[in-house]
Amino acid sequence: MSAFVRDQWYVAAYSREVGRELLGRTILGEPIVFYRTEQGEAIGLADRCVHRRFPLSESRLDGDNIVCGYHGFTYDQGGSCVFVPGQQRIPRTARVASYPVVEQDSFVWVWIGDRAKADPTTIPRAPWLADPNYTTVCGMEPLNARYMLLVDNLMDLSHETYLHGGYIGTPEVAETPIQTEVDEDSGTVYVSRHMDDAACPPFYAKSTGIEGRITRWQDIEYHPPCLYVLHSRIAPQGVYPPAEGPDDQAFHVEVVYGITPSTENTTYDFWAVARDFALDDAQVSDFLQSNNHTVVMQDVTALNLLEQVIATEADGYQELSINIDTGGLAARRILKRMAERSRPEGAVTS
Amino acid sequence: MSAFVRDQWYVAAYSREVGRELLGRTILGEPIVFYRTEQGEAIGLADRCVHRRFPLSESRLDGDNIVCGYHGFTYDQGGSCVFVPGQQRIPRTARVASYPVVEQDSFVWVWIGDRAKADPTTIPRAPWLADPNYTTVCGMEPLNARYMLLVDNLMDLSHETYLHGGYIGTPEVAETPIQTEVDEDSGTVYVSRHMDDAACPPFYAKSTGIEGRITRWQDIEYHPPCLYVLHSRIAPQGVYPPAEGPDDQAFHVEVVYGITPSTENTTYDFWAVARDFALDDAQVSDFLQSNNHTVVMQDVTALNLLEQVIATEADGYQELSINIDTGGLAARRILKRMAERSRPEGAVTS
Amino acid sequence: MSAFVRDQWYVAAYSREVGRELLGRTILGEPIVFYRTEQGEAIGLADRCVHRRFPLSESRLDGDNIVCGYHGFTYDQGGSCVFVPGQQRIPRTARVASYPVVEQDSFVWVWIGDRAKADPTTIPRAPWLADPNYTTVCGMEPLNARYMLLVDNLMDLSHETYLHGGYIGTPEVAETPIQTEVDEDSGTVYVSRHMDDAACPPFYAKSTGIEGRITRWQDIEYHPPCLYVLHSRIAPQGVYPPAEGPDDQAFHVEVVYGITPSTENTTYDFWAVARDFALDDAQVSDFLQSNNHTVVMQDVTALNLLEQVIATEADGYQELSINIDTGGLAARRILKRMAERSRPEGAVTS
Repeated sequence: MSAFVRDQWYVAAYSREVGRELLGRTILGEPIVFYRTEQGEAIGLADRCVHRRFPLSESRLDGDNIVCGYHGFTYDQGGSCVFVPGQQRIPRTARVASYPVVEQDSFVWVWIGDRAKADPTTIPRAPWLADPNYTTVCGMEPLNARYMLLVDNLMDLSHETYLHGGYIGTPEVAETPIQTEVDEDSGTVYVSRHMDDAACPPFYAKSTGIEGRITRWQDIEYHPPCLYVLHSRIAPQGVYPPAEGPDDQAFHVEVVYGITPSTENTTYDFWAVARDFALDDAQVSDFLQSNNHTVVMQDVTALNLLEQVIATEADGYQELSINIDTGGLAARRILKRMAERSRPEGAVTS
Repeated sequence: MSAFVRDQWYVAAYSREVGRELLGRTILGEPIVFYRTEQGEAIGLADRCVHRRFPLSESRLDGDNIVCGYHGFTYDQGGSCVFVPGQQRIPRTARVASYPVVEQDSFVWVWIGDRAKADPTTIPRAPWLADPNYTTVCGMEPLNARYMLLVDNLMDLSHETYLHGGYIGTPEVAETPIQTEVDEDSGTVYVSRHMDDAACPPFYAKSTGIEGRITRWQDIEYHPPCLYVLHSRIAPQGVYPPAEGPDDQAFHVEVVYGITPSTENTTYDFWAVARDFALDDAQVSDFLQSNNHTVVMQDVTALNLLEQVIATEADGYQELSINIDTGGLAARRILKRMAERSRPEGAVTS
Repeated sequence: MSAFVRDQWYVAAYSREVGRELLGRTILGEPIVFYRTEQGEAIGLADRCVHRRFPLSESRLDGDNIVCGYHGFTYDQGGSCVFVPGQQRIPRTARVASYPVVEQDSFVWVWIGDRAKADPTTIPRAPWLADPNYTTVCGMEPLNARYMLLVDNLMDLSHETYLHGGYIGTPEVAETPIQTEVDEDSGTVYVSRHMDDAACPPFYAKSTGIEGRITRWQDIEYHPPCLYVLHSRIAPQGVYPPAEGPDDQAFHVEVVYGITPSTENTTYDFWAVARDFALDDAQVSDFLQSNNHTVVMQDVTALNLLEQVIATEADGYQELSINIDTGGLAARRILKRMAERSRPEGAVTS
């Protein structure tokens, strides 16, 4: 269920996290050290010294080189070893793998898989996160749960009513049927839920100032494996987009997730909330940051619990799926297909 | 050694623990949620939502129904699903298992196994715990040890002298030989130790007020797998039960244990001490509660340590048994036989 | 990589650690309880009661006998059971293994393996630790890492420059090539690094009072599997040993390690620093104790981290070795040979 999809771009960090301090992250089981050169380029190298496997992320930078903290093996930004202790000759094989890294939309993306296939133009976009017409709050929470549990969670927002009641959930979310579509070519999954007449949850009431009931649209785009976008449109009840011109009677929020498997049972949960209103209102930013962090932690608690449940349950446990699960089931199917295609030849899954 | 005995009643909780808050317990590896209906009936349901396995014990009650805390699947007290989000039709298979539950002698008993075989009249009795002629102190401690270690512990009270010296142990317990009998039909194991002339340990000296030496009888009845009773008779040295009439020169304490396997390596240790004297004396109750809790925790510490020892020892480790172990060995033999008989057909033990 | 070498002497404790309190240590996976008789003899017995495997180290001494804390089985200093509860007859097989124990050079050595082969004259020597012409500071740190990682660490001191910079490392250690010799008969590995003109690290500057640059010699003798000695000679730059007579212009420090595997992934790291100067200077002792403890903890942190790295890496991971590793590679080779020879007949490694 949690087989990894390789030959893909993954969110490894926010750009602001990668600097002149070494940052170690494990992506799809691969330990990687990230840093930024003096010229400002983001670098990702295998996080194990070739000599005695010491994590380079526990080492130090000397200019743009990493000096291993154990015996001083020194690597340049391409991963080539340029110094070893006690001798002049540097062994030809003394190099660590370098990872393709691209910065886009406030994220540092890393390519996991066959680097010959890495094409930056295929990285899915989340332009709002770096758009001056939007203001963004964001964070990252490590999950002690497999990434499929987070995919399930995000593809079925009916859980907002129960797990996030009092924050982003109201009865109408669970009550309103969804529309699911799959673009089999691109692998994108779309799930839409349009509520014509709904209560306004505190998350939106306090940030938009709307009093009374709302028309609330949730339009999900999931670009497997990593990028999830929820286009959220909030307007006073009955206000729909005009036939022409800007939809300026409504409030738009782009909720973006980077879903990055770390190990089989742990995941990096990158979350961001970009809005097109109250752009300079620090109070609104603080409220959304705090409120959404609470919501994310409710998910973290629930998913970590589910991971523990799975760890103790008998093999062959059967779930029961209903209409709300069509998006999640489509995502699982596509991820399974992608995982099979990306598996190195000759590899078997356990 | 720790194979479970199914098709049996187990103590799941004290009645007072089961109320309008959901209580999750794992019994013989089966996660169960307990609660009490508005009419007062104790209910036990499988603690996993059929949808995405969320623990129902982490959810909330709505009247007598449980509303899953993740997506709102709602179950009635029989385990049938009565609501799912986003659609009217409820799938026919949407139900969680309901467990036979009986309240008796202050305990909530649950049947683990084939529910067609559940016969409440076979639940062993501990009537003193709910008898107004007795006053009871009690508690429950979770053990990080397999249940067999607690059975071993309780069947051989010679350990009182060493592990519980200064509380309930005196030299005479370890010195005095035991009588062991087994009722092969019912599977009951009896172990008796009658000390004619013994020091009085603080547990009994402070609670009964006896000064000087005592005649102390310990008569164990173990009803495998779950219920253990120690009939303890304490009297001034030389005072024996009269040929006729009540034994009112003696003090009687019924020490009751519910030994309930949770997982292979964890156990619920329910303990109760019922006395027929000083019934309304709160000081005596407080003393016995505190003193026996200390004794139980001495056992918990020792048994948790033994579980760790077993985890690291080589296969085929051999114990050495002597006369004091006849009760424990009989209990092991009967539990092994019961486990083999209760195993689902075709199942293999690991 | 971490196969144990049996039929060998290992440092189990400092003599001062073994007294009238029971001390439990696990050596090569064997749990052993150590204590000292009233006459002062150090004793090592298997740390498991024959009855129900309770750790004797959690018990108490009665004179020179150990009384098991669970049921009172009592063992004399030879491991023979001399009392069991509830009966006069003591089973013939009621005895725990006794380990050959020798006190030498401030250590308690224990023989692990076939006791018929235990020859105290083969215990390697570290006489400085108990020599009035030296003053010693010492300690023991438990490692959550396999012992081979500590052997690797100590055989290649070039890591002093990087891991212990500011304490015992200077650039010259990593820069200066080593000489490695192996005595194949005795299995001893020698690694020497002689620095003619080196910076003086704080460890030596503050303890010797030397100002300016030094001539620094490091001469390692490793007596596998357990005893490691670093003969460290420090002198003002250009001062060499005289052709005749004592080398009294130099400062000598004997750095001794006892490397004792506890389990497959844990190790006792005994460390001692003996000096032939400032013998009665408590300030120097305090400084060296504190400074070396910091250095040891830097190693502990690094090696514990490496153990975690190994636990998650793919099988068949390849290290890259260079000239500095000749000592460590020789040690590995000899340990592997010793492990194979010491394996009980018919045993297989996992």
